[in-house]
Amino acid sequence: MQPREFLMIPGPTPVPDAVLESVARHPIGHRTPEFSKVVQDVIQDLKWLGKTENDVFVLTASGTGGMEAAVSNTISPGDRVLSLICGVFGERWAKVAEAFGAEVERMTVEPGKAIDPKAVEAKLASAQPKFKAVTITHNETSTGVINDLQALAAAAKKHSALSVVDAVTSFGAVDLPIDAWDVDVVVTGSQKALMLPPGLGIIFFGKRAWEAKANCQSKSFYFDLKKYKKSLDANTTPYTPNVSLFCGLATALKMMREEGTESIFARHMRLKQSLRAGLQAMGLELVVDEEAASPTITSIKPPADLTVDAIRKKLKERYKILVADGQEELKGKIFRIGHMGYVFERDVLMTLASLEATLIELGHKVEPGKAVRSASDLLAARK
Amino acid sequence: MQPREFLMIPGPTPVPDAVLESVARHPIGHRTPEFSKVVQDVIQDLKWLGKTENDVFVLTASGTGGMEAAVSNTISPGDRVLSLICGVFGERWAKVAEAFGAEVERMTVEPGKAIDPKAVEAKLASAQPKFKAVTITHNETSTGVINDLQALAAAAKKHSALSVVDAVTSFGAVDLPIDAWDVDVVVTGSQKALMLPPGLGIIFFGKRAWEAKANCQSKSFYFDLKKYKKSLDANTTPYTPNVSLFCGLATALKMMREEGTESIFARHMRLKQSLRAGLQAMGLELVVDEEAASPTITSIKPPADLTVDAIRKKLKERYKILVADGQEELKGKIFRIGHMGYVFERDVLMTLASLEATLIELGHKVEPGKAVRSASDLLAARK
Repeated sequence: MQPREFLMIPGPTPVPDAVLESVARHPIGHRTPEFSKVVQDVIQDLKWLGKTENDVFVLTASGTGGMEAAVSNTISPGDRVLSLICGVFGERWAKVAEAFGAEVERMTVEPGKAIDPKAVEAKLASAQPKFKAVTITHNETSTGVINDLQALAAAAKKHSALSVVDAVTSFGAVDLPIDAWDVDVVVTGSQKALMLPPGLGIIFFGKRAWEAKANCQSKSFYFDLKKYKKSLDANTTPYTPNVSLFCGLATALKMMREEGTESIFARHMRLKQSLRAGLQAMGLELVVDEEAASPTITSIKPPADLTVDAIRKKLKERYKILVADGQEELKGKIFRIGHMGYVFERDVLMTLASLEATLIELGHKVEPGKAVRSASDLLAARK
Repeated sequence: MQPREFLMIPGPTPVPDAVLESVARHPIGHRTPEFSKVVQDVIQDLKWLGKTENDVFVLTASGTGGMEAAVSNTISPGDRVLSLICGVFGERWAKVAEAFGAEVERMTVEPGKAIDPKAVEAKLASAQPKFKAVTITHNETSTGVINDLQALAAAAKKHSALSVVDAVTSFGAVDLPIDAWDVDVVVTGSQKALMLPPGLGIIFFGKRAWEAKANCQSKSFYFDLKKYKKSLDANTTPYTPNVSLFCGLATALKMMREEGTESIFARHMRLKQSLRAGLQAMGLELVVDEEAASPTITSIKPPADLTVDAIRKKLKERYKILVADGQEELKGKIFRIGHMGYVFERDVLMTLASLEATLIELGHKVEPGKAVRSASDLLAARK
């Protein structure tokens, strides 16, 4: 017998039993009053979570499908787009925009660093011709960096560029008040802080985004948001949706309402802080400095005497805990721990303790117990 | 207490418990050897079911997403496309192709009729310039018509046009030997004969389709099949897939392997024949003549003294059986019974008996028991 595989990866993330039960229920017809009620609840609760009155649509697609919807509904071939890149998912925005014929300029910082809003502001101010849109990665999954979205969106707005934001690994874990920050387009996915299996993309689409849509020349059908808008006015979707995940999402959002946004966001901050404290106490080097460190993903360099492969393999074999490798150029150079959604303090303690035991078993010198002590000191000190 | 809602609609369809259990299991990481094994099994079994060596890709999207993938990977703006239209879903092909800039010519027959392959052949022969592709609806969900796909695909091939086929409500219920019939592109969805909840689109993509892809100028990212091909070579997907539905699909396909293709196809023929016999014995008028009647969906005109609304409402209220209204111009004029996937003879008998009781309760004159007798006579006579 073995414990259930525990997902401390940046998605899919742990799914609560109540959500699994909703997903497991026999699908209901999607052209029924019962399903329309689910759609209504989901839309209302997503707006609550995003603190917004903007339109929001739920797509049967991965988060990347949501990114395509963001681009193909606002950007025309030849439009100038500024892509802010601090990792793999920032680069994905650039690739999606290029796939739709945009003229993309990349502003790239080295992995582990955040984008500097002042540099963006200067870039936008001097741009000739002006940029139509700025693509932003709120939380860079490949490195565990969180960007200053409020400042970046403000810079974009000041220079009449749309802010087009990937919030896949932040939305629902980190405060993202869409209206207060006046963000134009926000994309997320089901399998992260929303605590669902993968399969739904979610897109918030604001007033200026609709204005861009009116003149948009890009070709699309499945992701054409005008169709979703028309259907949503009748509490339905244009194509057969993933009924099961919609029902699961309704349940997940109800659970989030019970906890409350500020409590959820504070929990994720505690997870980050206690995990980082424990890892540092273990003598491990973190990839991201404190001020840019993500509340949902933490990247770690392996000790010089161990490989990422060996650590991940042993942690899975002995403790059934999954952590992620680095991606692309960081493969084998870092490992990443996801801590978002249905993840709690005890999971951080378990992960720290298991990682410590793993390092010791692999022959690395660690002072036993120190990691957990640092984390639990920090947790005990909270109000 | 009430019985579970029974879906005799053309999708979502009934899902077997074993499949629901697979879907309900906690998601596994999608970059793991365990998930790669699921991908391998699913691909192998889909090829078995489609009797093909062509590539097949599983998209996290509705069937309509699969249709977009079919178009955006083969058709360039300005290409001439012949769309064969015998209902709502035939028209959808035309709309998707137009959304991607194709010059679409429609060959339309009245609802309830099938496309005439000879007329298509003549059209293709005289076309100047030649058509790049012919869009075909194998089984028209809005009317319950099945087209002669073998003849239509042969006509397309003869005139060097790609055959691009919507098999959403036929694949897995009706024989569709892709290689023997040399069909270029076949699209289906999870929530029909494959017995899953909605959320996956499936696309078979043949050699000539890849040749078209090489010169295709349409813009796409999420549905760019080159990326799926590259990932599939490593038994994975380019973006986070719907892990739960993949696992459910593996289970469903295993069940289908146990029953065997010919047995599955024969069962659907029996469902169609016994249902039609029963409906006719009840004095109801069927929309589609025997030779074009779909093995998976049957359309019925309401008796002159009753409305479609009244019948559907009472059937749901009293017996918790869902049947579908007509779509668009046929709304309120016909109702549709779906009988595909995890549907059996007893379900047809139950539906006939419940419909009969419904009509009687609504004041329509029916000879009690005659419908079920006709159906069961037919079922009893089988070998």
